[in-house]
Amino acid sequence: MTDTTAPRRTRSDGERSRRTILRAAANLATIDGLEGISIGNLAARIGMSKSGLYAHFGSKEELQLATVETALEIFEADVVQPSDAVADPLERIRAYYAAFLSHLERRVFPGGCFFASVAAEFDTHPGAVKDRIAEIHEGASEHVRRLIAEAQAAGSLRQDEDARQLEFELHAYLLMGNTAFVLNDDPSCLHQAAAAIERRLTQAQPA
Amino acid sequence: MTDTTAPRRTRSDGERSRRTILRAAANLATIDGLEGISIGNLAARIGMSKSGLYAHFGSKEELQLATVETALEIFEADVVQPSDAVADPLERIRAYYAAFLSHLERRVFPGGCFFASVAAEFDTHPGAVKDRIAEIHEGASEHVRRLIAEAQAAGSLRQDEDARQLEFELHAYLLMGNTAFVLNDDPSCLHQAAAAIERRLTQAQPA
Repeated sequence: MTDTTAPRRTRSDGERSRRTILRAAANLATIDGLEGISIGNLAARIGMSKSGLYAHFGSKEELQLATVETALEIFEADVVQPSDAVADPLERIRAYYAAFLSHLERRVFPGGCFFASVAAEFDTHPGAVKDRIAEIHEGASEHVRRLIAEAQAAGSLRQDEDARQLEFELHAYLLMGNTAFVLNDDPSCLHQAAAAIERRLTQAQPA
Repeated sequence: MTDTTAPRRTRSDGERSRRTILRAAANLATIDGLEGISIGNLAARIGMSKSGLYAHFGSKEELQLATVETALEIFEADVVQPSDAVADPLERIRAYYAAFLSHLERRVFPGGCFFASVAAEFDTHPGAVKDRIAEIHEGASEHVRRLIAEAQAAGSLRQDEDARQLEFELHAYLLMGNTAFVLNDDPSCLHQAAAAIERRLTQAQPA
């Protein structure tokens, strides 16, 4: 062992516990809301002292923003990256929605889509957290609009489809499926969303 | 004046203040959530004593349930009853969604659709309030499925449309419009929803 081992281990322990805290916070946020995450109840849940938690996050807003970034990393690894590996643009769109619906059905977050949940909570609460959530929503819409444009360029989707409107409709099925799934604890709502997405994409293909 | 005047006036004053409380509570619920309504902050908002409020509602759950019923009355008077007056079944469906989108754009509730807002909040909180919210959502879906069946019987919508799936898709556009409208404070999201609803209904008409 060298002199640098101890500090290095300390830092990586710190990173591990930061990740543990933020993963717990992201789960809790889909149950009790981002406002429901207090340093006190997080400390109780993961068995860490409040002062230990304060060392990681200076304020509640800092904790909320870090929780949002953690949820985004999880979403990107679970939904975006696997579907991005599909070469054909139209198949990439299908893979994105299939991965998203599977992400919901596997309850990667216990309260359904993290970003739908926190958007419904923060839409009426102006500030840095709401701005970041709106930015992530806009980024997800842009991602799909870009895939639609690529599929149109490849001739797999009709030129006369408006990418903004098509993305709105596809996203709508997903959001409705998520809402009904969580409210009724019924996976058939996700299957209705999958059917609607497939039907809409089929209509958007050239005759 | 007769002996009965005073008690009668007292009772109707009580009803008026109960309505005032519940209207304020329904507005507040779309901003801070039904859990954010405390007897304390409601009392402060409407300038009534906490003990005066306790006289109306025995518990927080009772206040939440009464708030949900008040929101339902407002929604029915603003959206359901006017559209129910339209004779033709397909036009009644169009009138229902047009009234719903107008209800959102006029911000009858400041945080958008009351029932979308409280469903997102209570979907992960089992109990009497969640059950009542889920029942109201199911009732709204049933209402539209009934209108679809009537329009099919009248020959205005295709027989091979699955009423459950069609209602899911129409509701999805509404929910997406509401979510994006409140998050981005942008009425064009409601116009996208209106366009999607019209497009879907046109597709569902016999050739």
